[in-house]
Amino acid sequence: MAQLARRLGVGTSALYNHVAGKEEVLARVRELVSDRIDTAVFDRAPFFDALLIWARSYRDAFARHPATIAVFATTALSGAARTTEMYERVVLAFLAAGWPDDDVMTTLVALENFILGAALDAVAPDEMFDLADATDAPALSRVTAAGRAAAHGRSSDASFEAGLDAILTGLRVRLARLSH
Amino acid sequence: MAQLARRLGVGTSALYNHVAGKEEVLARVRELVSDRIDTAVFDRAPFFDALLIWARSYRDAFARHPATIAVFATTALSGAARTTEMYERVVLAFLAAGWPDDDVMTTLVALENFILGAALDAVAPDEMFDLADATDAPALSRVTAAGRAAAHGRSSDASFEAGLDAILTGLRVRLARLSH
Repeated sequence: MAQLARRLGVGTSALYNHVAGKEEVLARVRELVSDRIDTAVFDRAPFFDALLIWARSYRDAFARHPATIAVFATTALSGAARTTEMYERVVLAFLAAGWPDDDVMTTLVALENFILGAALDAVAPDEMFDLADATDAPALSRVTAAGRAAAHGRSSDASFEAGLDAILTGLRVRLARLSH
Repeated sequence: MAQLARRLGVGTSALYNHVAGKEEVLARVRELVSDRIDTAVFDRAPFFDALLIWARSYRDAFARHPATIAVFATTALSGAARTTEMYERVVLAFLAAGWPDDDVMTTLVALENFILGAALDAVAPDEMFDLADATDAPALSRVTAAGRAAAHGRSSDASFEAGLDAILTGLRVRLARLSH
């Protein structure tokens, strides 16, 4: 809180006129990030199509604020009412799609794991491997060069779309298995 | 480097007798973490079975050192020869499984995104949602309680296994599509 006050150029006590403490600051920041996640799509698109749009907006929201990823992924959601609302909407969509109560959070968190990892990758340098460095790794060098040559746009976008497609394909299979 | 020297109780110049600078420290730490990732499995198991074992060991390696996740996910691999070797082995396995050169890194990074997100989740509190806090989110409360009641072991493990199964299922479909 003292550091934050310094960065804002105000006294620490001035901060406490607005928030109860560090936990509330984090909750408000979490809401600002999650406000950018599109849940309205669940009202207008079939479940798996909506999940795709939701996941893209979720990754974009966190890629804009990469410093928050590790913090929010590892601290309990507390006091962030609008983020809780976001989850409520998504949970209702899982249930409406036929997901069993006791598997919704397991699956939702699995999907979030992928999205948050992809949000970190979205802010990584586009060239993660120094090819000059990889003379002892000829296969790695070759596939990295081939990937770059074939890339349309950023490689992190291609990986995100490939992974999202794979995990949603697998989740369709999971839903079919759980419904029987 | 100054902070690290202080933590080790040595002079900063003593550190420079061992490493050239911060970048080398990071490369050595990256190797220590990636040394725990099982690549030998690719010599003895079919590709998708091996990928499952590799992914579990990869997540465990990073879950032991969660502070490194965001750092290594977002900085280029440089000077970490043993980590480069790890990638070389995995790339060879993708190629042997029939993966096209220009899609290996796209798919490998997609899988890593999931694994690193799951490594963050592995160090999150087991109860991410405060149910008392979620009176305005009845569906979220219900599925969270149902998930906890059904859980055998940690919920982060269940999410990791569910997501890994889903993404590998999807990658089998991807490979079949790419091979045609």
